[in-house]
Amino acid sequence: MKRNIITLLTDFGEKDPYVAAMKGVILTIAPHVKIIDITHNITKFNIREGAFILASIIKYFPRNTIHVGVVDPGVGSLRKPIIAVTKRSILIGPDNGLLMLAAEREGLLKVLEIRRHKFLLEEVSYTFHGRDIFAPVAAYIANGVKPEEIGEEVEEYVKLPFPKPRILKKKIIGEIIHIDDFGNIITNISIKELQKKSISIGSEITVEIHGEKEKLNLKDSYSKVEVEQTLAIIDSFNLLEIAVNQGNAARKYNVKVGEKITVTF
Amino acid sequence: MKRNIITLLTDFGEKDPYVAAMKGVILTIAPHVKIIDITHNITKFNIREGAFILASIIKYFPRNTIHVGVVDPGVGSLRKPIIAVTKRSILIGPDNGLLMLAAEREGLLKVLEIRRHKFLLEEVSYTFHGRDIFAPVAAYIANGVKPEEIGEEVEEYVKLPFPKPRILKKKIIGEIIHIDDFGNIITNISIKELQKKSISIGSEITVEIHGEKEKLNLKDSYSKVEVEQTLAIIDSFNLLEIAVNQGNAARKYNVKVGEKITVTF
Amino acid sequence: MKRNIITLLTDFGEKDPYVAAMKGVILTIAPHVKIIDITHNITKFNIREGAFILASIIKYFPRNTIHVGVVDPGVGSLRKPIIAVTKRSILIGPDNGLLMLAAEREGLLKVLEIRRHKFLLEEVSYTFHGRDIFAPVAAYIANGVKPEEIGEEVEEYVKLPFPKPRILKKKIIGEIIHIDDFGNIITNISIKELQKKSISIGSEITVEIHGEKEKLNLKDSYSKVEVEQTLAIIDSFNLLEIAVNQGNAARKYNVKVGEKITVTF
Repeated sequence: MKRNIITLLTDFGEKDPYVAAMKGVILTIAPHVKIIDITHNITKFNIREGAFILASIIKYFPRNTIHVGVVDPGVGSLRKPIIAVTKRSILIGPDNGLLMLAAEREGLLKVLEIRRHKFLLEEVSYTFHGRDIFAPVAAYIANGVKPEEIGEEVEEYVKLPFPKPRILKKKIIGEIIHIDDFGNIITNISIKELQKKSISIGSEITVEIHGEKEKLNLKDSYSKVEVEQTLAIIDSFNLLEIAVNQGNAARKYNVKVGEKITVTF
Repeated sequence: MKRNIITLLTDFGEKDPYVAAMKGVILTIAPHVKIIDITHNITKFNIREGAFILASIIKYFPRNTIHVGVVDPGVGSLRKPIIAVTKRSILIGPDNGLLMLAAEREGLLKVLEIRRHKFLLEEVSYTFHGRDIFAPVAAYIANGVKPEEIGEEVEEYVKLPFPKPRILKKKIIGEIIHIDDFGNIITNISIKELQKKSISIGSEITVEIHGEKEKLNLKDSYSKVEVEQTLAIIDSFNLLEIAVNQGNAARKYNVKVGEKITVTF
Repeated sequence: MKRNIITLLTDFGEKDPYVAAMKGVILTIAPHVKIIDITHNITKFNIREGAFILASIIKYFPRNTIHVGVVDPGVGSLRKPIIAVTKRSILIGPDNGLLMLAAEREGLLKVLEIRRHKFLLEEVSYTFHGRDIFAPVAAYIANGVKPEEIGEEVEEYVKLPFPKPRILKKKIIGEIIHIDDFGNIITNISIKELQKKSISIGSEITVEIHGEKEKLNLKDSYSKVEVEQTLAIIDSFNLLEIAVNQGNAARKYNVKVGEKITVTF
């Protein structure tokens, strides 16, 4: 089966030849493919952030899409190059957990270790598997080569569990998992955890963030508070987000990814 | 009629899942479409800057292109989602003026308010209409659905007038409307206004900018002055621009978008 | 012969209408073309950096690709617009050396000066040849127009020699030619020069960089040293690179492109 879309997610940035080299390799092998950039601005070596972004968008892409992820601090070490085959899509990248959160959401069927050299570039460097392994493997699969012809199933692979919030009686202790380009603070507390505690739009909650406590009304859109006011909101990925209407919440509270957020109600 | 190109202009930046989610939605509905990024680096919430960029490039795109613009500080409020149908192209986005400068240049025929839910994502969030409304509507129109099947014509919509320069006897008082990545200072004074005052290439003008007066000769290319010298130039979009040859004029004069520029002659 | 891929490399950045205007022009003339961005973040006016990036990736693209490069401090001056025809590909841009390093690696056949106005936009500005000359010429060639119909062969054109390292008896004096987004320091010393001096993976070398001397073991992958440790490595483009495992070498040594690097052995 031919596949038409390959997406790329990396921490390579946008000034170097790395992303373009991958695209050239893909189009040389599979000229029919449409290449879509997810982002190349994952924080360098931050596998967890890459995993979160990939998992956030994967369901919006068509069935049979091939997703290549390269956030790969262990390139050239013994970490395996893998293909994750799921019900909806194929994911390709390093075995460091980057792919698995997304793969599980897509219905993981099996994980293959890439082994057959005829589907790689002739010379495989120890520093750029994106170009030498992942791009050509993605392109051959787009051409109809079966993943099973390229790799062999493995039982062991790295999972990177999404940090789960701690649910107490009158408290949820969560974590900041992403700060977006607007400065919105995205937490790992999902709408499900809030619903279990009967918190919904309009509920009053107290949020403790970087040592400051704020009483906030849970809103469904930024424009429900005045400009420059803080609000708590269920965001478009169904996660609790602390935001400032038309402002930058991360700067206001001076927070970073990984910090705790406590919600009391 | 099928349409093949959808362009995207947003203030979403390039590190988050937002742009990719829109692309996934488009390609799921309309796999044949070519998606072209105009830019995702509009200054956050700066509708006027987005309108200027979109209006600058729209005529260079083929007839029948679909342009999606999302600079949307009022998302989730009562502002309408609209489709602007023009002689050459279709524009889709929030009713806040972002689209209208470009739409008028393309020959505006009518403005429709998006109403039919079957052309939206199943769950429409209050915070991400780019993904839930504008992307699917663009994709369905690319597939041949008529805009009139999706929305209903409205008489009232937000116009965002391009700030016009004041023309006096021996003076034109304009405004900085954009500072580009080179630091070139782009004004709202067009070649037409200069021609009415008989100013053309080679004319000597005095430009007052951020309190400093400079006597400048109007040039047609950057290389007509020495490196690091200031010049006045008619730029490639027919607007008066203050630039520094191989330097950064905005940094030199410490100016921002919105400041006055006075030309005396 | 139709050609299907046009790549773009510029110093235009990603917030302005310039790149999008070029894409619109290309798609208006040649709707079948796939446009691939190499990068738009070349340091402003840095022709040498642009030449290095273009030369690094060109071999990874398919035969018959058209590459457009625009790093053009002399736009509007007498510098010629050119087409370089090579055995594998076509390169289009200003005659300032930007294209020639890549063109030579592709097997340069001839250089043509663009002369025929019917293949340009109707109005050619003096400030934006990317949109008015290079984009339409690339699109017409993608449509099957022969380069010889658009330009005339010239004998003289600007070459920009890649700075060669000085090879002494017990020393190689090289230069930093690029610092990538990871902070890796890329030099002009290639694997060939090292091999001639019998330096290979595992050899001990002394590297002098910004006044500091470091004894380093030449490695083949970043993960061969501890996190935050400096290493010397042959990178994926076969050049000597000074890097810090999961760190930023350029920041650690406070170096810039153009500085000397001395290797003694």
